[in-house]
Amino acid sequence: MLLPSIPTYDKQSAGKARIRQQQLTKPLGSLGMLETLSIQIAGISGNEHPHFCHKEVIIMAADHGVAQQGVSAYPPDVTAQMVLNFLAGGAAVTVLARQANAAVSIVDIGVNHDFKNVPGLLHRKIAPGTRNILHESAMTRTQAEEAIQVGMDIVNQRVKQGMDLVAIGEMGIGNTTPSSAITAVYTNLPIEKVTGRGTGLDDSELSLKIKLINEVLAFHHPDPRDPLEVLSKIGGLEIAGLAGVIIGAASHRIPVVLDGFIAGAAALIATAMLPTVKPFMIASHQSQETGHAAILQKLGLKPLLNLEMRLGEGSGAVLALNLIEAATRILNEMATFKEAGISEKI
Amino acid sequence: MLLPSIPTYDKQSAGKARIRQQQLTKPLGSLGMLETLSIQIAGISGNEHPHFCHKEVIIMAADHGVAQQGVSAYPPDVTAQMVLNFLAGGAAVTVLARQANAAVSIVDIGVNHDFKNVPGLLHRKIAPGTRNILHESAMTRTQAEEAIQVGMDIVNQRVKQGMDLVAIGEMGIGNTTPSSAITAVYTNLPIEKVTGRGTGLDDSELSLKIKLINEVLAFHHPDPRDPLEVLSKIGGLEIAGLAGVIIGAASHRIPVVLDGFIAGAAALIATAMLPTVKPFMIASHQSQETGHAAILQKLGLKPLLNLEMRLGEGSGAVLALNLIEAATRILNEMATFKEAGISEKI
Repeated sequence: MLLPSIPTYDKQSAGKARIRQQQLTKPLGSLGMLETLSIQIAGISGNEHPHFCHKEVIIMAADHGVAQQGVSAYPPDVTAQMVLNFLAGGAAVTVLARQANAAVSIVDIGVNHDFKNVPGLLHRKIAPGTRNILHESAMTRTQAEEAIQVGMDIVNQRVKQGMDLVAIGEMGIGNTTPSSAITAVYTNLPIEKVTGRGTGLDDSELSLKIKLINEVLAFHHPDPRDPLEVLSKIGGLEIAGLAGVIIGAASHRIPVVLDGFIAGAAALIATAMLPTVKPFMIASHQSQETGHAAILQKLGLKPLLNLEMRLGEGSGAVLALNLIEAATRILNEMATFKEAGISEKI
Repeated sequence: MLLPSIPTYDKQSAGKARIRQQQLTKPLGSLGMLETLSIQIAGISGNEHPHFCHKEVIIMAADHGVAQQGVSAYPPDVTAQMVLNFLAGGAAVTVLARQANAAVSIVDIGVNHDFKNVPGLLHRKIAPGTRNILHESAMTRTQAEEAIQVGMDIVNQRVKQGMDLVAIGEMGIGNTTPSSAITAVYTNLPIEKVTGRGTGLDDSELSLKIKLINEVLAFHHPDPRDPLEVLSKIGGLEIAGLAGVIIGAASHRIPVVLDGFIAGAAALIATAMLPTVKPFMIASHQSQETGHAAILQKLGLKPLLNLEMRLGEGSGAVLALNLIEAATRILNEMATFKEAGISEKI
């Protein structure tokens, strides 16, 4: 498939932001990660005074054939029901997006439900869910490419409308199972180290999930060097779509704010396809879901928040938008020692 | 001195919020600390649907005689200069307060500078700084009481004007030294475990600071059971004022958002005076300053953020206001499973 070219991280703008941080009225380094974040954002955007006017969260929803195997605490119907809850504004991510003044794009990329012409939803269904990865490939290679393209297309369109900061989220009952499988493939960790309780499995259900993922990987043997093979064999349509959003955002120099475990799996795919997207990603939070810490370590990302959350949807990513805005405001609005006439360090 | 009565934490409202969290469209507990925070806020405010309309940060500024001893990387003039920077809106806390839509009250409770009638500043100077605690008491017992009263009075006045959520901050070159001394008194930890680099001491300066605080405590022997004695012997006027803000806020059922190390020292004093204020406090962040973790442990508080900050001013407290608002919005705006027609756990 045709992938966009990724611009280089702008070290010059990052360097100018770093120098400005040294001149602002505070002891050097005393704003910690807000300082490093502001420098990274300058490098991403190629602007030493980055400023965001149009934040958005893109939420990809899809179903999973493997949900038939009892890998989730909730029935598969909940995917479609939650999409409607997003549209009505009653879900956590939509509540937090209102607070963050972020637009919300909800994409049906593979939900096993006919939404007809329900307004507000982006109708980009590739298939009504993946097939059951215990027995067959999740999707064809062409479908994986199409799903990635959906993500890139939506970003391209949104950027034309002014989007300058994007958070990613997802909905898909069963989607921690393919995410754990993808994480195992890219981290080489044992399945049990990257498999968690998702929406709330008990001990015996978790054991079954781990056993199932072992069988899935033994059956498919996906090659990590071929991320499209990984996606098509053991992936999810929303995971593919989010990988496309990450790639699309990086191609436009737009910071892409990751959410938790499933968004992390999409980031593993995106960086396997195009390692140069890495500096454009911001880790919003450390999820409680087992395996997310391993993803962040693999990606070399340090999370901004650790509030013991494990909801997904983009809730953590949207919550972190305020910190990203804070970092840019510090850079743009604080006075320098010289401007404020303040004595420097003795 | 006459202290206000502190209402009891409202377990009934907290219980109702807890039940509502179980009904909202998310796996139970999946919003982690946002859920527990929302329950605490319901218990503080006595309202199962808490909502904040008028957030404010109260910043107390004062000088410290002990700054003559070279315990800070910056000259004492910086206290007054930074007060003017706050008034001009160029300091980190004021930038972040604009973002958080929080009002800013800046109080001269003891700055060694004649601000004349500079507008916007609350002129409540008790003394032009403390005396040098290496050789004498910081202030008289009466001054300590007056400073606490300043904090309570400002809260009383602000509450009449609608303030319903308060963050605390401070400015005072040298103020990590009395804060370390207070922390040692209340935690019984060795001085070196609760003494940090403040605005940026090097190794030898830090050693001198630790030695000095050892001498201060050997000279004064303050009795932790008598917090007014602790304040008057080794305290700071801004620390006393902030203890008054904490007590005042609790008396009105208003959540008080702590900042870093100096605000933490004020919280140790406030809880020593009135242990019942404890449930009304929210820890905004874990500061990098050595000793802050020990304060939070002593108070039994878990910080919301850990961004490796160590600036003070109230910057961490104001940054956390967004998370507090998020917690209340989740409680008030999310749909329940019943409302959204979503299938419950299998």
